[in-house]
Amino acid sequence: MTVTNPLIEKKLKTAEEIAQLLPNHVTLGCSGFTPAGYPKLIPAAFAKRIEEEKKSGKTFSINLYAGASTGEELDGVLAKTGVLKLRIPYQSNSHLRNLINQGETDFIDMHLSHVVKYIEHGILPKIDVAIVEAIDVTTDGKIYLSTSSGMSATYLKNAESVYIELTDTHPLELKTYHDIYLPDHHSKSVPIPIIHPNDRIGHPYVQVTPEKIKGIVRSNKPDAATVFKTPDADCQNIAAHVLEFIQHEIKMGRIPKEYLPFQNGVGNIANAVLASMAKDPNFHAIQMYTEVVQDSVFDLIDAEKLEIASTSALTFSELGLKRFHENISKWKSKFIIRPQEISNHPEVIRRMGLIAMNTAIEIDIYGNVNSTHVMGTSMMNGIGGSGDFTRNSHLSIFMTPSLAKEGNISAIVPMVSHTDHNEHSTMIFVTENGLADLRGCPPKKRAELIIEKCAHPIYKDKLRAYYETALKVSKGKHTPHDLENALSWHVQFLKTGSMK
Amino acid sequence: MTVTNPLIEKKLKTAEEIAQLLPNHVTLGCSGFTPAGYPKLIPAAFAKRIEEEKKSGKTFSINLYAGASTGEELDGVLAKTGVLKLRIPYQSNSHLRNLINQGETDFIDMHLSHVVKYIEHGILPKIDVAIVEAIDVTTDGKIYLSTSSGMSATYLKNAESVYIELTDTHPLELKTYHDIYLPDHHSKSVPIPIIHPNDRIGHPYVQVTPEKIKGIVRSNKPDAATVFKTPDADCQNIAAHVLEFIQHEIKMGRIPKEYLPFQNGVGNIANAVLASMAKDPNFHAIQMYTEVVQDSVFDLIDAEKLEIASTSALTFSELGLKRFHENISKWKSKFIIRPQEISNHPEVIRRMGLIAMNTAIEIDIYGNVNSTHVMGTSMMNGIGGSGDFTRNSHLSIFMTPSLAKEGNISAIVPMVSHTDHNEHSTMIFVTENGLADLRGCPPKKRAELIIEKCAHPIYKDKLRAYYETALKVSKGKHTPHDLENALSWHVQFLKTGSMK
Repeated sequence: MTVTNPLIEKKLKTAEEIAQLLPNHVTLGCSGFTPAGYPKLIPAAFAKRIEEEKKSGKTFSINLYAGASTGEELDGVLAKTGVLKLRIPYQSNSHLRNLINQGETDFIDMHLSHVVKYIEHGILPKIDVAIVEAIDVTTDGKIYLSTSSGMSATYLKNAESVYIELTDTHPLELKTYHDIYLPDHHSKSVPIPIIHPNDRIGHPYVQVTPEKIKGIVRSNKPDAATVFKTPDADCQNIAAHVLEFIQHEIKMGRIPKEYLPFQNGVGNIANAVLASMAKDPNFHAIQMYTEVVQDSVFDLIDAEKLEIASTSALTFSELGLKRFHENISKWKSKFIIRPQEISNHPEVIRRMGLIAMNTAIEIDIYGNVNSTHVMGTSMMNGIGGSGDFTRNSHLSIFMTPSLAKEGNISAIVPMVSHTDHNEHSTMIFVTENGLADLRGCPPKKRAELIIEKCAHPIYKDKLRAYYETALKVSKGKHTPHDLENALSWHVQFLKTGSMK
Repeated sequence: MTVTNPLIEKKLKTAEEIAQLLPNHVTLGCSGFTPAGYPKLIPAAFAKRIEEEKKSGKTFSINLYAGASTGEELDGVLAKTGVLKLRIPYQSNSHLRNLINQGETDFIDMHLSHVVKYIEHGILPKIDVAIVEAIDVTTDGKIYLSTSSGMSATYLKNAESVYIELTDTHPLELKTYHDIYLPDHHSKSVPIPIIHPNDRIGHPYVQVTPEKIKGIVRSNKPDAATVFKTPDADCQNIAAHVLEFIQHEIKMGRIPKEYLPFQNGVGNIANAVLASMAKDPNFHAIQMYTEVVQDSVFDLIDAEKLEIASTSALTFSELGLKRFHENISKWKSKFIIRPQEISNHPEVIRRMGLIAMNTAIEIDIYGNVNSTHVMGTSMMNGIGGSGDFTRNSHLSIFMTPSLAKEGNISAIVPMVSHTDHNEHSTMIFVTENGLADLRGCPPKKRAELIIEKCAHPIYKDKLRAYYETALKVSKGKHTPHDLENALSWHVQFLKTGSMK
C-alpha cells in the first residue's frame, strides 16, 4: 500500500539521516497510544547515534512525550540509551519503569485528558520535534495517522519540525477511521458536539503546513502485537459479577435497556468482561466509548453485538490485526479513532453517562483506590484515563483479583499507600470473591461491605481486626483509622515479603 | 413584601401544624446552600415535636438532604434532637459535626455536582418530603426560591409532599435572580448551553404540580447572617501571592488579559483574595462562576470591577444583605443563582477554564490535598465543590496558612492523612510564606518546591529530614516515602498535641 506524491518524494530520507538531524538536547512529541501507531525506525536510528556519539563524549538528553504508553521500539530503545530525562504522560515499558523507579528518569503521571492543556499553555518543555507514524501525507500537508490518535494532532501543531514514518503496514482505508477535533480553550470554547459515540465532528486528517515536514521515512515495521492470555478463573469470576450487576441495574431502572456506552481499561480482566458479554444472551447492541480497543472487540463483532467502538487506539494481536485488515472496508461504521482529549473528555463522558470499568492495584476499606504506585513509591504505569472515566461516568467499576504475588499481597488493604481515586468518586468494587456497591454508603458501611464482599478469605480476619481496632482507637469515628498501623501491611510486606 | 393568592391562602398552615404532618421516620430534602435560603420554622417545630413525643417513647429518625451546609435553625436544631440518622452532602454545623465524629450520625461526603445523579437514580433513601424556603408561589405551582438554589429543584421534583416557608425577608425582585435548569441524563443528555458566566438557560422558578404542595407557612425569619473577620496578615500575604501569580500567568500568555472566570471557596482567605483584587489597579472587570458569593463581592462592586457573579447561593452579612436589598433592582444583571449541578458542572467549568481557589486542611510534599478529614478520621465540613472545581478548572489554587493550633500543626505534612485531591489534579499551592507552582513537576521536584516555598520555617528542617530519609529508604524512588513514618506527624500530634 505504498503511497507517493511530490511532497513525499521531496522529503524522503532514511531513518539514519533523520536521526542525524535531531538536536542532542531535544523534546520529542511522538505518536502512539499503547503499542499502536508509534514511530519505530527513527527512534532506533536515534538510539544508535546516541550510543555512538556518547563514546566520543557528546551529551544527550531527551524529553519524550507520547499519547500514553508506546512499544519497545520507542520507549524501550530510548530508555536503554540512558539519556531519557523526562517522560509524560503514561508508560508501561519495563526498562523505562526501572529508570523511573531508580530515580533516573522523571515521569509526570497525568490525566490523559489534561495533557493538551499542559502542552498548549507551555507548562512543560516546548516540543522541538514531532515524530508520527502515518499512512498517508498529501502535498498540502494533510497527515493521516495510523492505528492511534492520542496526542499526535497537538504535537504536530506545536512542534517546530515534523518527521513522519510512512507505514505501509495498513490498508489505506484506515484513513477514514480517524476523527480529529481539537477543542478551543478559554473564551473561544464551545460545547463539544458529541451526543452519541458514533458522532463524527472533525476531519480524518491532521493539517500541518508542509514546510514543517522536514523528513519522511518509509516504514514496513508493524506495531508490536499484543498477546492475550485466555482469561483465568479469577477474571471470569470478576466478569460474571460485573455482568450480573449490570443486569441488576437495568432492572432497577438505573441503566436503560439499550445500555449506556462502555469504557473499559486495558488487560485481561477488561477482555474477560467483553468476552462474557459477547457470550451472554442478556447482552446485545453494545456501544463503546473508550480509549483503547483490543482483540476482545472481535468477540462482540462475531456475536453481532458491536454497535460502535469509539477509541483513541486500536491495539490488536497479530491475528486480530489480520482480521481487522481483511474487514477494513466493511467495519468503517464500527470504529472511530479520536484524539485522547476527546476520547477522555469529562464533558462527553458525563453527558453520555458511561459505564466505566478499570483495574486497581489496591483498594482500601473506605473505597479509595491506588492505580499507580506499588507499595506507595514505585510507579507501575500511570493513572492514564482512569481518573477521567471514574469521576465522570454514570457508573464506575474497579476490578482486581483480591490477591497478588502468590497471596503475599492483599489487594484490599486498611489504607491505600497512594490515592488516585478517592471515596468521593468511586462506586463499585469487584474481585473474584464478589461485588461491593458502595454508592450511597457512609464510610463504616463501606468498610464492612468491602471486607465481606471483596477481600480474599485468607485476609478477611486480619482486615476485620484492623477495622475493629480502628473503631476503638480512632479519634474520629467518621472514618475510623488506627493511624499507627494504617500502612503497616505495606511496611510488613517490604520487610518480610508478605502481608500475611 | 407579603405575597398571596388562592393557592397560598388554601395551603396556609402554622409550622406546628406542618410539623405534626411529617412522618416520624422521614427523608427530608431541604433547600439551603450555606446559611442561605434554608427552612427555619418547620425544622424548629419538628424538633420541638420530636423532643415532646420522644418522652412518650415514640421513635424518630431523619435523613436530612440539603444543597450543602445550612444554618443552625435547620442542621443545629435537628442535630440536637439526636435522631438525625443520615446527612448528605456537606455540613458545617458544630452539633452535627460532633455527632458525625462520634459515629452517631452517618454522613456521605459527596462532590456537589454529583448529588442530583444519586437522587434521580434512587441510590439514596427516597425523599419523602421537600421543605424549601421561597419568596413566592403561584397558583399553578411555580416556586420562586430565596437566596440559594442548591438542590431545591431536584428535591421538589422527587418528593412526594412539599412544604414551603414563604419568607418576606427579601424584596420580590429576588425572583429574577434565579436560573433553574436541570440537565437530562443518559441518552437524552445534550450540551449544557452555558458559554459565558452570564448566560441564562432556564426559568427563574421551579415548577411543581400544585397538589404536591401540602402546606405553606409564612416566615419572617432571616438567614443567619455570616460574620466576616477582617483578613489577618496571613490571609493578606496569601492573597498577595495569588494576585502576583495571576499577573505572572497573564504575562506568560496562559491567562487572557480579560481574565478567566474565578471560583473561590468560602471563608476568610477567599474573601481576602477578592478584597485585594478590588484594591489592585492591575485587576479590572471580574467574572465569577462560583458556588457561593459572600460580602467580598461588594468590594468588587464598589471598585466597579464586578462584571457578573454566577453562584448557587448569596451568603451575606446583615449589613451586606441590607446593601443587596437596597440595590436589588439595579444589580439584576450582576448575579445569577443556579442549581448546584450547574454551578459545579465539570462540563461548564472545563469549557470556561476557571481559576479555582480553594482551601486545604493539609497538603503533603507531593501535592496531595486533604480538604475534609482532621487527622485522617474526623470530618471537618466535606469536600463540597472543591473536587468539581479543582479537577476541571484551567488553574487550580489551594490556599492555607502554613500553621494551625498555635503552631502545633503544620499544614504541610509528609503524607496527607486523607486524600481528597491528588497529585494528578492539583497545581498551585499558596501559604503565607509563598507559592509553589507544581504544574509540570515530577514528584521529587514537587517535594522540594512545597517544602521551600510553602512550609513554615519552624517545620522546614523536619520536612527536609523526612524527605532526605525517604530518598534513602524508599524502595521506589519515583515518589519516595518512608512508609513507617509517613503518618508519624499525625500520630505524634494525637499523642502529644504537637507535630513539632
